[in-house]
Amino acid sequence: MPDGALSRRAELHDVPARVVREAIRSGRWRGTTHDMARGHVQANLAILPERYALDFMRFCLRNPKPCPLLDVTDTGNPEPARVAPGADLRSDLSRYVIYRDGKKVEEVGDIRALWRPDHVGFVMGCSLSFDAALTDAGIDPAQLRRGEPGVQARIPVYTSALQCVPAGPFQGPLVVSLKPVPRHLAAEVEAVTSRYPLAHGGPAHVGDPAAIGVDPSRAEWTGPCTIGPDEVPMFWACGVTPQAVALAAGIPEMITHATGHMFLTDLTLADIRR
Amino acid sequence: MPDGALSRRAELHDVPARVVREAIRSGRWRGTTHDMARGHVQANLAILPERYALDFMRFCLRNPKPCPLLDVTDTGNPEPARVAPGADLRSDLSRYVIYRDGKKVEEVGDIRALWRPDHVGFVMGCSLSFDAALTDAGIDPAQLRRGEPGVQARIPVYTSALQCVPAGPFQGPLVVSLKPVPRHLAAEVEAVTSRYPLAHGGPAHVGDPAAIGVDPSRAEWTGPCTIGPDEVPMFWACGVTPQAVALAAGIPEMITHATGHMFLTDLTLADIRR
Repeated sequence: MPDGALSRRAELHDVPARVVREAIRSGRWRGTTHDMARGHVQANLAILPERYALDFMRFCLRNPKPCPLLDVTDTGNPEPARVAPGADLRSDLSRYVIYRDGKKVEEVGDIRALWRPDHVGFVMGCSLSFDAALTDAGIDPAQLRRGEPGVQARIPVYTSALQCVPAGPFQGPLVVSLKPVPRHLAAEVEAVTSRYPLAHGGPAHVGDPAAIGVDPSRAEWTGPCTIGPDEVPMFWACGVTPQAVALAAGIPEMITHATGHMFLTDLTLADIRR
Repeated sequence: MPDGALSRRAELHDVPARVVREAIRSGRWRGTTHDMARGHVQANLAILPERYALDFMRFCLRNPKPCPLLDVTDTGNPEPARVAPGADLRSDLSRYVIYRDGKKVEEVGDIRALWRPDHVGFVMGCSLSFDAALTDAGIDPAQLRRGEPGVQARIPVYTSALQCVPAGPFQGPLVVSLKPVPRHLAAEVEAVTSRYPLAHGGPAHVGDPAAIGVDPSRAEWTGPCTIGPDEVPMFWACGVTPQAVALAAGIPEMITHATGHMFLTDLTLADIRR
């Protein structure tokens, strides 16, 4: 790998996860982690004060589809030793979001100055991990993405009418992502993703969006999503869910990854395949 | 089911788990849960003060073979709502052990008078759940058990040289159970049990006992175990492990199930099969 800034995403496609983390830690990569260290499990991050950690961990156990727990750090220790020995959650993600009292206050590229001795880091599997498995099955994951034309395809996300199982202050609706899947691929997409429960697993809902209170034309962070006549709407539990419930709980502080700027674990898809 | 004491274990073999829990709660059954509510997942219980709960939950996440976490109650609430809605951990097990300051002080049939608002209940899958799966595969689980002749067959248990991943005060060796498996059945037994990671999963070790520091003639709670020339020694992570590490940590109080007196969950083997 060359010194200095990395100009091309492709340089990080087929490297070990550690190499991506090092490129981010040294400031040589500031972009999203889409397609990086392919075949490795990408993860959502949530950092909370210890006094909320037990309830948040119970929330994850009770809601494994949106919150598939891969690792929880020791209090005050930023190393997620179970999934990435030697990694540092303060510096190994390319973009973080700081929330205070239920409001987003800042996005930053490093949280070394913000880390406290009472912080606990939660690492949860992310559906970006699916991409390699879908590709291996002969399905191009890009064809399942929608969004505003002209910008990088993003996956439309909705607050559904399905409710999470509460734990302490953490409660609220399940946030879901929508992929319109060509009818002839639907069974295979369901089967492939179901093999990876630690990356959200199989769909939380298949079929009529109204049955789970979703109007596809009203995506929250992307443009409207249309579903063609030969497509099946498939919804997955989304890693935004724990952020949404933590914000709704109004806890004083939470730090998360920024959308698309995931944590790269050393786990491979084979490690979490069932 | 008749009123009054149940005279025969067979009356509880093929009933829903709820019926076993009710028989125990009402005092009509005081025995072990071996073979009861067949096809349901049986579980280990540990009750700890809340101040130890976060570290204990991290210990379970980091050591899923000995501590496959099925449910964690809300603090002060004895209902494990995820695995047995309506159940009561204070009365639905037929025998409990009370430990204080790292020492066993008492065995009781009910802990309603001992339950406190800061108690958290941990429910962890148990390998008794395997029995039905082995039977379905045409393997008699009784033939895999050893122990002192003349008493009900028990499974020999050993402290191994394998170390658990620590979390806070919880650390120590992995406790394993030994089943000598006829050579022609070894692959099938490994395959069947590996399908149930929430009931300890596949073996933690297969073959030479000395490789994990075990001398089969020195079982800790049963008689010596001999391994025949046509048998393979197979070791599973044992649910005694979390009790052993909690005791070694010298925490002031812990309440567990007594050996063989498990908690019957509403989960079926199909629910946890992967």
